[in-house]
Amino acid sequence: MWKQQLDEIRNGNSKTLARCISCIENEVPGYEDLLQELPASTTPVIGITGPPGAGKSTLVDALIGTLVAAGKSVAVLCVDPSSPFNLGALLGDRIRMSEWYNNPLVFIRSLATRGSLGGLHPKIIEISDLVKTAPFDYLIIETVGVGQSEVEIAGLADATVVVVVPEAGDEVQTMKAGLMEIADIFVVNKSDRPDADMFVKNLRLMLAPAFTIGLTLLSFNVLGDALRDAVDPLLQRSR
Amino acid sequence: MWKQQLDEIRNGNSKTLARCISCIENEVPGYEDLLQELPASTTPVIGITGPPGAGKSTLVDALIGTLVAAGKSVAVLCVDPSSPFNLGALLGDRIRMSEWYNNPLVFIRSLATRGSLGGLHPKIIEISDLVKTAPFDYLIIETVGVGQSEVEIAGLADATVVVVVPEAGDEVQTMKAGLMEIADIFVVNKSDRPDADMFVKNLRLMLAPAFTIGLTLLSFNVLGDALRDAVDPLLQRSR
Repeated sequence: MWKQQLDEIRNGNSKTLARCISCIENEVPGYEDLLQELPASTTPVIGITGPPGAGKSTLVDALIGTLVAAGKSVAVLCVDPSSPFNLGALLGDRIRMSEWYNNPLVFIRSLATRGSLGGLHPKIIEISDLVKTAPFDYLIIETVGVGQSEVEIAGLADATVVVVVPEAGDEVQTMKAGLMEIADIFVVNKSDRPDADMFVKNLRLMLAPAFTIGLTLLSFNVLGDALRDAVDPLLQRSR
Repeated sequence: MWKQQLDEIRNGNSKTLARCISCIENEVPGYEDLLQELPASTTPVIGITGPPGAGKSTLVDALIGTLVAAGKSVAVLCVDPSSPFNLGALLGDRIRMSEWYNNPLVFIRSLATRGSLGGLHPKIIEISDLVKTAPFDYLIIETVGVGQSEVEIAGLADATVVVVVPEAGDEVQTMKAGLMEIADIFVVNKSDRPDADMFVKNLRLMLAPAFTIGLTLLSFNVLGDALRDAVDPLLQRSR
């Protein structure tokens, strides 16, 4: 039943891809068969996470820009929170990435958390496996604004980027468990802020003993090129 | 078996209280009996939540100050994140509230999330019921730095205070579902920041149609007195 759809997805038909994502999201009868037929894939996954308002969407926007400029195609899955009261969601990421909506190299899909905790969609693993079937060069997954203990993205992404702002609390904050432990790459946004230097220094001090391989600290305002250069070796490693 | 301990807790013996909390936390054999013997209680519960680094601990510290100055006794449960890798936790709140450790009116207990999501401890309901047995005038529960979808505190607290910083993203951020919906009171911290006025204005605009009862917006730096005055009517309402 799903063979035709899978062939279309493999050939880059993004309408079919979008429809099949909805099938998985809504657990349309028979969607398990689709999942079983998915081939293995090595599309690299970049996870972007961070607390609410740190600048995740802005970073993703910049990253899309630099990938597209290099002629790469990219799929983006953005997760936004569902309301605990009316169960609706404002998929705000759509607003921020409007520049890319008509670009044939870019596929953007917003998902709501639908009550799941951890910063992702309850079916994010299945959906990302489906997207990896399509011929994109990169898959970017942006979490909702996460709390200190929402670290599930680290299990899904080949390279995890944690976006923080300099005054995210004091030194004690940088030593805390959870979110600060999962980063392959830290991006310190809004680094024109006073005390940003001190924050970066504390971050380096904290990281020194544990993380020596592959960690890059980007202590300037979002620069897609530098991020891509930092992400690439990580993705190589995970192959 | 637990009768003597409960009597001691009722008489304000904080050592016994601390030991019994550990019994519940570690599921010591027989702890269910203790839970069954807990009496009903009306101690008001104030929940403090917000994204990582917004200033929750600082706010709790100020709130303790104003409550103690008014001769009230207060118990504080602070939750900090556990590491997903080594399962340890840095209970940083202890460092921030050191001023109150020897004050007989104040009882502070740090808890680790132990892998639970939602910003609280897996046994927080049981533990808070136990603490409410002790003769405290208020119980303050501080969550870990939460993400947009971690809203469990709203089900536990009589008054929920959400601490935000002015530049927590753009206007889209204030319209998002989840954390922004559960607040009885917003505290806008670091309001000396440029654009703080705009942020408060956006917040007011967003709130206008939905929340007309009991919502207070504290758009200045943390002031314990004003917060206490704002919290009190909410707690009355919930009786």
